[in-house]
Amino acid sequence: MSIEEKVAQLIQGDINGWMNMTDPADNTLTHNATGLANMMKYKAGSIWAGYSATYEKFVYAVTVGQKYLMENTTLGIPAMFQSEGLHGFTNNGTIFPSPLGMACSFNTALLQKVAEATANEAEPLGISQIFAPVVDLSRELRWGRVEENYGEDHFLNGEMGLAFVTGLQSGKRRNASSTAIARMAATCKHFAAFGSPQGGLNLAQVSGGERELRSTYLRPFNRACMNALAIMTAYSSYDGIPAMTNDHLLVQILRREWGYKYWVTSGESHPTFHKVDLPMSLHATCETRECCAKQSLENGLQGEMGGGTYTYLTLPDQIRAGKVSQAALDETVSYMLRTKFALGLFENPYPYTDYNHIRTNETLSTLLQIERESIVLLENHDNILPLSKTGINSVALIGPSAGQVIMGDYVFSGAKDNGVSPLDGFKQVLAGTNVQVNYAEGCKLWSASEEGFPEAVTAAQNSDVAVVVVGTWSLDQNLLWSGVNATTGEHVDVSDLALVGAQLNLIKAVKATGKKVIVVYVSGKPVAETWVYRNADAIISQFYGGELQGRALAEVIFGDFNPSGVTSVSWPRSVGTAPAFYDYLKGSRPVDWTGPGYIKDDGTLVFGHEYTLDSPVPFWSFGHGLSYTTFQYSELSFSKSTLSKSDTLVVKVNVKNTGTRAGQEVVQVYMTDLFSSVVTPVQSLQGFAKVDLAAGESKSVSVSIPIQNLAVWTLDNKFVVEPGKFTVQVGTSQAVYVNGTITVQ
Amino acid sequence: MSIEEKVAQLIQGDINGWMNMTDPADNTLTHNATGLANMMKYKAGSIWAGYSATYEKFVYAVTVGQKYLMENTTLGIPAMFQSEGLHGFTNNGTIFPSPLGMACSFNTALLQKVAEATANEAEPLGISQIFAPVVDLSRELRWGRVEENYGEDHFLNGEMGLAFVTGLQSGKRRNASSTAIARMAATCKHFAAFGSPQGGLNLAQVSGGERELRSTYLRPFNRACMNALAIMTAYSSYDGIPAMTNDHLLVQILRREWGYKYWVTSGESHPTFHKVDLPMSLHATCETRECCAKQSLENGLQGEMGGGTYTYLTLPDQIRAGKVSQAALDETVSYMLRTKFALGLFENPYPYTDYNHIRTNETLSTLLQIERESIVLLENHDNILPLSKTGINSVALIGPSAGQVIMGDYVFSGAKDNGVSPLDGFKQVLAGTNVQVNYAEGCKLWSASEEGFPEAVTAAQNSDVAVVVVGTWSLDQNLLWSGVNATTGEHVDVSDLALVGAQLNLIKAVKATGKKVIVVYVSGKPVAETWVYRNADAIISQFYGGELQGRALAEVIFGDFNPSGVTSVSWPRSVGTAPAFYDYLKGSRPVDWTGPGYIKDDGTLVFGHEYTLDSPVPFWSFGHGLSYTTFQYSELSFSKSTLSKSDTLVVKVNVKNTGTRAGQEVVQVYMTDLFSSVVTPVQSLQGFAKVDLAAGESKSVSVSIPIQNLAVWTLDNKFVVEPGKFTVQVGTSQAVYVNGTITVQ
Repeated sequence: MSIEEKVAQLIQGDINGWMNMTDPADNTLTHNATGLANMMKYKAGSIWAGYSATYEKFVYAVTVGQKYLMENTTLGIPAMFQSEGLHGFTNNGTIFPSPLGMACSFNTALLQKVAEATANEAEPLGISQIFAPVVDLSRELRWGRVEENYGEDHFLNGEMGLAFVTGLQSGKRRNASSTAIARMAATCKHFAAFGSPQGGLNLAQVSGGERELRSTYLRPFNRACMNALAIMTAYSSYDGIPAMTNDHLLVQILRREWGYKYWVTSGESHPTFHKVDLPMSLHATCETRECCAKQSLENGLQGEMGGGTYTYLTLPDQIRAGKVSQAALDETVSYMLRTKFALGLFENPYPYTDYNHIRTNETLSTLLQIERESIVLLENHDNILPLSKTGINSVALIGPSAGQVIMGDYVFSGAKDNGVSPLDGFKQVLAGTNVQVNYAEGCKLWSASEEGFPEAVTAAQNSDVAVVVVGTWSLDQNLLWSGVNATTGEHVDVSDLALVGAQLNLIKAVKATGKKVIVVYVSGKPVAETWVYRNADAIISQFYGGELQGRALAEVIFGDFNPSGVTSVSWPRSVGTAPAFYDYLKGSRPVDWTGPGYIKDDGTLVFGHEYTLDSPVPFWSFGHGLSYTTFQYSELSFSKSTLSKSDTLVVKVNVKNTGTRAGQEVVQVYMTDLFSSVVTPVQSLQGFAKVDLAAGESKSVSVSIPIQNLAVWTLDNKFVVEPGKFTVQVGTSQAVYVNGTITVQ
Repeated sequence: MSIEEKVAQLIQGDINGWMNMTDPADNTLTHNATGLANMMKYKAGSIWAGYSATYEKFVYAVTVGQKYLMENTTLGIPAMFQSEGLHGFTNNGTIFPSPLGMACSFNTALLQKVAEATANEAEPLGISQIFAPVVDLSRELRWGRVEENYGEDHFLNGEMGLAFVTGLQSGKRRNASSTAIARMAATCKHFAAFGSPQGGLNLAQVSGGERELRSTYLRPFNRACMNALAIMTAYSSYDGIPAMTNDHLLVQILRREWGYKYWVTSGESHPTFHKVDLPMSLHATCETRECCAKQSLENGLQGEMGGGTYTYLTLPDQIRAGKVSQAALDETVSYMLRTKFALGLFENPYPYTDYNHIRTNETLSTLLQIERESIVLLENHDNILPLSKTGINSVALIGPSAGQVIMGDYVFSGAKDNGVSPLDGFKQVLAGTNVQVNYAEGCKLWSASEEGFPEAVTAAQNSDVAVVVVGTWSLDQNLLWSGVNATTGEHVDVSDLALVGAQLNLIKAVKATGKKVIVVYVSGKPVAETWVYRNADAIISQFYGGELQGRALAEVIFGDFNPSGVTSVSWPRSVGTAPAFYDYLKGSRPVDWTGPGYIKDDGTLVFGHEYTLDSPVPFWSFGHGLSYTTFQYSELSFSKSTLSKSDTLVVKVNVKNTGTRAGQEVVQVYMTDLFSSVVTPVQSLQGFAKVDLAAGESKSVSVSIPIQNLAVWTLDNKFVVEPGKFTVQVGTSQAVYVNGTITVQ
């Protein structure tokens, strides 16, 4: 291979180079041959193909691209065609709930099916790489991208991320050889520590040391991504080192320590800060594009995404001039080729003739189930929920989010059109009953106007009970970058976690009618509203659902589905009391505790030290979620009570459904290292299992915990399992149902 | 020395052990001989003596203590007697403004005089150690102790800290030998990185890496404290390592790299978490007190503060059992003895017969000047200030902080009684004029009640102009720990930076009268109130003043003093937009900038990306402060435009007072490393000078900057001055008056 051919493997091309992909409805099956040849000469390793188009045209486009590479180039190396699929294939495929929401299911098997369904849709069309999952941690809640992760906890992110990678990559492309190991390259994002930007501002630097990096941020990548065929670097810097030129991170840890064998690419497009140029334009660690290319390549960043300045095109001259290591280039290309071999692309790079597998019945069934299990019942005073379809005559459905479909970011333009709103869902679920739905928007999401309140109040007055749907909102990828208002999503960061505009007052106005009020937060992150916490009769969280969001919500509210989700992120009482994540280091929260300070509804001030007028204890902590039935835990036992470092602890507990209806329960096992050579978290999720239990049924649930997972990053900068006692608590991060102690020798 | 005698040198005793110090008014000159002997047997290295007492009794107490040590013990080693003096000697001495306030003066010479005055009061009474200065950084504004530091910037903390140490330690005790180097041991706190606790919660862990530690947190200690005779460790952990058992910090950096030669002690009393026991009780890195003692001693922590469990008493047995290093003990004792020799204590450990030097005229003169220079004029629309003593007939003085003295933490019980409130100050300054002061409290600090509003509104209506004094408040050390409400001070952390209770509404009610409103923030940290920013006619910041606070404030308001303070900390627009410090790393803020989001006064929502409804750009950034005159900068020149690493850059600039009255100007020089191997701040204060200029006067001002100060902590973990271009900007962190570029070779 010539130097140019090698470099071309590193640069992302674009299907738009030989096809006109601007009009989604156009179905002209012709291409620009010159554009194709030109593209493949310089940008041939991977091809961006995340466009809405007719599938016929799309398949045509991929086919001519691959055909050119296979038949008209010396080397015959096929390209990886790439798209997005964070929570559903973005080429008009099925949209699932936001990752933050799916994480609330704690159902790895189900998430694996979601990822399989996404690959089932993308693979036949010729897509071989999807830029997902994101296993950053949702610990800085002001950040717009909180919804893209599997919550605040590294263990949950690792388990869910692994399920997603496994599902997405499952199986092989047709006719792939025996050496192929996956049909699709999952792409773990964003390596690493991207999720805690200073001030919650997208791309901002992250403060942290090696211990926090190893113990928290890197764990999900190590767990989920070792077999993922791609990893995307973070945009940010960590302790002053840009992630994309970080030799320690990309070479020493990822390649050498972990032995990662596949493709490492730069981030996707950002309109201002172009990929490989980030060291120049954002971090100012390079003065020239040549420096950016050299530093990236030599420090382990391999692929340059397109749409920018194509700075890797400076590499051939730099290599010939001896300024950039030829060996680094060769090694980098070998990783790209290995990734393609692992995909079996050489054997069959083409779309399949039966390419349309979008929204199959199986996929829709998986979708509905993950929609249901993503919903979390946070509060249910006096068991007001579920509402009875026969016990009430009418329900008011109120709020700016009640009559529309709200999806998270990373969905295609028009994705909402496939969706079921809460209002649609109510109609579906109440079809055939005598329950009247009195709908009122009440207010707009982005407005302080209270003009719609009277209509909402009337709707409540005319109903037996009121459901108010409020929260945050995001937009599809086109609108999101166009400057339209939103409150979550990439590059939409907030300084407050309270409801925006007139929403809180709307709830108050509805509550003032004297009717019971069920508040539904449809959101991409926790909402911090003390008044709602104190006054709502029930509170439901739905972190942005997918296409069947309204259906699943209605099923939960009317009891067709018994909610089983538990929150994947803790809910702070206000932005000023964040972070609220449950696994804080010992001694950090709360310390000078004399009870919480607060302001009573009548305005009276009650003093506390931490904080003077609030509390660092969240409304609901990680793992909390209610059910319409009740569960009793008993008979906690351990495979051994004294274990060696190489043992696996099996925690066994009996869970009984003590209520009158079937339900699912997420059994969560938290452990605490009582004393350690370095400061460790007050508790850490170490395992979980989800079980189905009929009314009255008992099951013995086992959770296996490799003792190696208890290792701490010591003063000597290595992971060591330290002897000593560990508590084992089964419950949620805010409630202990049964507990015991083990000893590690 | 026996092992017990050595250990006794490490443990802090208490003067209360042989004197009854509970009644401040009691003057009985007798002591408990048994108590004295017992104390000196086990706790003889240093003696806590921070009590309010008659000076006659206090001197008696110190004298008998030292006399016992000198004459009744084999070794004859005198003790260091210790008290507090963060901003004034706390044994009923003169209280100066809070350090955060004094830092606004940017006047190192004046701060040095403040510290000298404190030592002048303490030394004759037999005090030889003062637990100050604090050079933590005020970067996490929720933290209660923000007021104790010299602001957010490491350079300013270093310069002010050095001035304080130099002043406090200046001179020698009477009859001290030529080897003595200081009359008083300053104690730099809290080593290190204590000021950015997670969530702003006191004692909480700090996230950060080695680069941030070196480049930010450690710099002020390295600058200010190498000749300080004591350093106090932090309570918190940094990247999982408790500061007090951190070998890397206390031994490798402080002792080996920096060559620090003096005493390193644990923190003062915390009612729940006792000093050397912190690894057990807070961090859980030790299971036993024995472990705490061993880990502390062997990792470089030397002194155990009293009032706790006296865990260092476990050392003799541990050393005899070979569990703790005898060499570590010997080395530790040698540091204590070196410190005492450096104080000249062996020559004359006793109080002086002329012991009362409290509140001398010279001290009060220094006090008044620092009070004045600590005040910052933030806004002055239409030059409404200064108010004319002849041009107006009446002024309304309104607000919960207008009629009382509010001091920061670390003052003695009753310190307020010596203070001049704003109301008192107005009366003093307006004495002999015809200006009527119409005072109204308006509301209480800790209440939402608006009962007092009508009186305040009437006062405003009856006046030509209104001054409203609002803000935060702290308490003296007795009250602070008793559970009385406050909003700043040690272990009083807030989740919001807005005004508490009815204060904002009070300002609105006064403004609604149509009168011009001058808002004075008396506070221990920035107050975040957008409405005030938009609507006040002038805004003054007084970070807690000292005894003459109200006098200085009145002088500024009525133009007897032309304000010259510049803010030592940036003022974020809300708690959710913090941190707001000016020297953030490149690429961190703001990035996805499409203008700020905001809510108009009429409720209209205006969308922005960072943040959706606010801005990360502070109201006022570090270094901002107005004057009643105007200054013009010109003729910027550099000693050389191309410099070597060992050079010192001299920045010269002409500053002209272009107004009609005399004034002081803080000339600030910021530099930016345009490209660097690691990510560096967008700008860094590298030098400043304060000049007095008569109306029309010009001065050439020189600021010297050692090029070594531009070193960055590289990937190789060392400080390196990297060749390249640096911009030099003279102005504030939010305004550039003149600028240029230099090159480092």
